[in-house]
Amino acid sequence: MRCCDVSNQGMVNGMAVKHYQLELRTKGKGTYEITDDVQEKIDKSGVRDGTVTVFVQHTSCSLTMMENAAPAARRDVERFFDELVPEDTDYEHDDEGPDDMPSHIRMVLTRTSETVPVVDGKMQLGTWQGLFLFEHRRDPHHRKITVTVMG
Amino acid sequence: MRCCDVSNQGMVNGMAVKHYQLELRTKGKGTYEITDDVQEKIDKSGVRDGTVTVFVQHTSCSLTMMENAAPAARRDVERFFDELVPEDTDYEHDDEGPDDMPSHIRMVLTRTSETVPVVDGKMQLGTWQGLFLFEHRRDPHHRKITVTVMG
Amino acid sequence: MRCCDVSNQGMVNGMAVKHYQLELRTKGKGTYEITDDVQEKIDKSGVRDGTVTVFVQHTSCSLTMMENAAPAARRDVERFFDELVPEDTDYEHDDEGPDDMPSHIRMVLTRTSETVPVVDGKMQLGTWQGLFLFEHRRDPHHRKITVTVMG
Repeated sequence: MRCCDVSNQGMVNGMAVKHYQLELRTKGKGTYEITDDVQEKIDKSGVRDGTVTVFVQHTSCSLTMMENAAPAARRDVERFFDELVPEDTDYEHDDEGPDDMPSHIRMVLTRTSETVPVVDGKMQLGTWQGLFLFEHRRDPHHRKITVTVMG
Repeated sequence: MRCCDVSNQGMVNGMAVKHYQLELRTKGKGTYEITDDVQEKIDKSGVRDGTVTVFVQHTSCSLTMMENAAPAARRDVERFFDELVPEDTDYEHDDEGPDDMPSHIRMVLTRTSETVPVVDGKMQLGTWQGLFLFEHRRDPHHRKITVTVMG
Repeated sequence: MRCCDVSNQGMVNGMAVKHYQLELRTKGKGTYEITDDVQEKIDKSGVRDGTVTVFVQHTSCSLTMMENAAPAARRDVERFFDELVPEDTDYEHDDEGPDDMPSHIRMVLTRTSETVPVVDGKMQLGTWQGLFLFEHRRDPHHRKITVTVMG
């Protein structure tokens, strides 16, 4: 294992924290890329070195890093979760429709927050990485995501 | 996608980090809400803008965000994990009882750390979000959680 | 629930952020411990109180906290994921071989980033906790992990 510094310029005087909110209208189950929206907030913050924490404020949708080049790969991921956490199973909590309880379980199996390093003002994502909101409900929803830039 | 600032007041001089420990005695498998305990530490820290990182120091219990209004929803989540990672399967690592190896796998499938934005001294949780320790062992355990407030 | 401070010395003047890169050559599917490599970067940073964020820059391998004492426990975790997300299933995205699509799904089910508290210069891990790169591809790969120390 070879290790090398990406950046070493600690900003000893003057770290700051800035919060932004993203709002997204989903059109049913599926994955919605938010990478550019998050990067736009980092640009706005002026932070060059630090981290960005992306936090989804819901329990029936979630956050995930995903392959962002091949749409077929995203469809396979979505299909996997449809089969792993089926809607046509007996759930005790079923007042809000058959897609409600599976949405909570799929959220637990994926993520609510993700923290990504920011170097030279850019998220340090790999070539194929994108950040996605994973909507688990069938109906359109208005989703809120908090973006916190620190550095 | 409409985006708007939640808060923009970077505290340029004077960010600090404070660590606290939560200790919790579990009474067997299930989910235990810790939202208020984490908020209490944030109150104590005096931090108004920043993040809180909650970190579970164990490999047989985990952390999860969850729907906190309907207990039936939590029971469905617990039942799902009981069925997805059954105890009555042949595991190579079985010295500590049939619930030990499933507990490690359930931990890997859920979370160890979660970072939540803190705005105006409060965790920016959605209406139905709660933070839970997810105990995967049958016997009572003494669990340690580190709460780190930065801002 | 009894709660007690681990450390309360906020470093009010002088927080800094430092980024490092770990590079790892994997030899096929399996879990590779990186705990010591991450700790080495913290030592190098000089940070005593803060957090470390470990971020994997790939979508076909992931990060996980895991039991680090019993190799059999790790083999059971690996076997569980082999069975939960099988290679011999029809995936729409299959241009890069039968282990490609399962690798993306296993990544979504585990983690890309983990944030761990740093107290007195050490990651606050529990006795049995280790941090692992979880390689999901069969062929050897060159993997990049960003380690961000803040404090």
